[in-house]
Amino acid sequence: MSNRVIQREELSEMEHLFKINLVNSITGYKSANLIGTIDEASQQTNLAVFSSVTHFGSEPPLVGFVLRPTTVLRGTYNNIKKTGYYTINHINASIIEDAHHTSAKYPAEISEFDQTNLTAAFENGFVAPYVKEARVKIGLEFKQEIPIELNGTILILGQIKELIIPEECLLKDGFLDLNAAETVAISGLDAYHLPKRLARFEYARPNQAIQKIKN
Amino acid sequence: MSNRVIQREELSEMEHLFKINLVNSITGYKSANLIGTIDEASQQTNLAVFSSVTHFGSEPPLVGFVLRPTTVLRGTYNNIKKTGYYTINHINASIIEDAHHTSAKYPAEISEFDQTNLTAAFENGFVAPYVKEARVKIGLEFKQEIPIELNGTILILGQIKELIIPEECLLKDGFLDLNAAETVAISGLDAYHLPKRLARFEYARPNQAIQKIKN
Repeated sequence: MSNRVIQREELSEMEHLFKINLVNSITGYKSANLIGTIDEASQQTNLAVFSSVTHFGSEPPLVGFVLRPTTVLRGTYNNIKKTGYYTINHINASIIEDAHHTSAKYPAEISEFDQTNLTAAFENGFVAPYVKEARVKIGLEFKQEIPIELNGTILILGQIKELIIPEECLLKDGFLDLNAAETVAISGLDAYHLPKRLARFEYARPNQAIQKIKN
Repeated sequence: MSNRVIQREELSEMEHLFKINLVNSITGYKSANLIGTIDEASQQTNLAVFSSVTHFGSEPPLVGFVLRPTTVLRGTYNNIKKTGYYTINHINASIIEDAHHTSAKYPAEISEFDQTNLTAAFENGFVAPYVKEARVKIGLEFKQEIPIELNGTILILGQIKELIIPEECLLKDGFLDLNAAETVAISGLDAYHLPKRLARFEYARPNQAIQKIKN
């Protein structure tokens, strides 16, 4: 297997689409989520696919995601800032086309829920809409926005308010079986993958062989 | 399929291990990378598994990852701050046990490269060590650390200096075939998965059916 080495200067001069396909692929697999919001008047919903949702800590339970400068003017950001709440919904194998469709640039007055087969579900009195067809869902409260001056993106941090999880996916030790939930992963800008577990390993300790967890 | 709804208060009161297993699972699949560094004297190497490496932008090409407070005193952070450089190496299916082993708390004077079957490779004159057994590798220059005051973690942002990619994994449009590279994804604290592509979709446009990319 021969390797291609690409230096920063060569990368910078690459054709735009080639470059964004490559740089979006290079960090590995990404989480695949739909972020649901509603406007201040509780009238107009918004739904958008994000591949940057990242775990930031367990106590308090913090989740982050990155907004590009071009998305800042759009629904997700405005709705989160106005209402203070949003939902994160796992994309599963049966909704990947509709999930991808939410990345189309619809005007603010059109809800992606109306343009796809995805359904807005208001559950447990939560302000923002969940995606009915998603199996694993998080209700979040906005906590902080951190401007990334290096490129004009914004890191949005939120705290988990509630979780909705299929009983059969929650194992005895708290591990969530994402394979059973058919949660997908994204690579690059446009590829959706179904992962299959190779192994779970016990907590690693110095000078001890790694043991598989059986469950 | 019946759902379990977990509110913030219940989550907070859960047994520690149950809670961290759950909250670490809840954002979906995560990238699986080994971060390689070396100390200021170019003597002592360090290697650690991270599941928080995230794409932050393509121009400039920016990559972020999250350091927990407990890891700040350890090798990765100190070495990056002192030398200004680090490598990110995709974990592939054949090195998952050794990759997990790097999470064991070895003292600073012991290199994880010496405790595992993973090999430090100094390539193209880059300061920090790559993992020889990894197939997709990124050399990065440290740009900024952003303290997350909500929980004491630190977001480390770096710019891509060079990429090392198997020729056969780089498609004509810049998309990197992570399936061919056998790159894995992580879920929770300890599960390693091999994803398989379901589809790539064309750029989504309003009121147009989603088309698959054939390649």
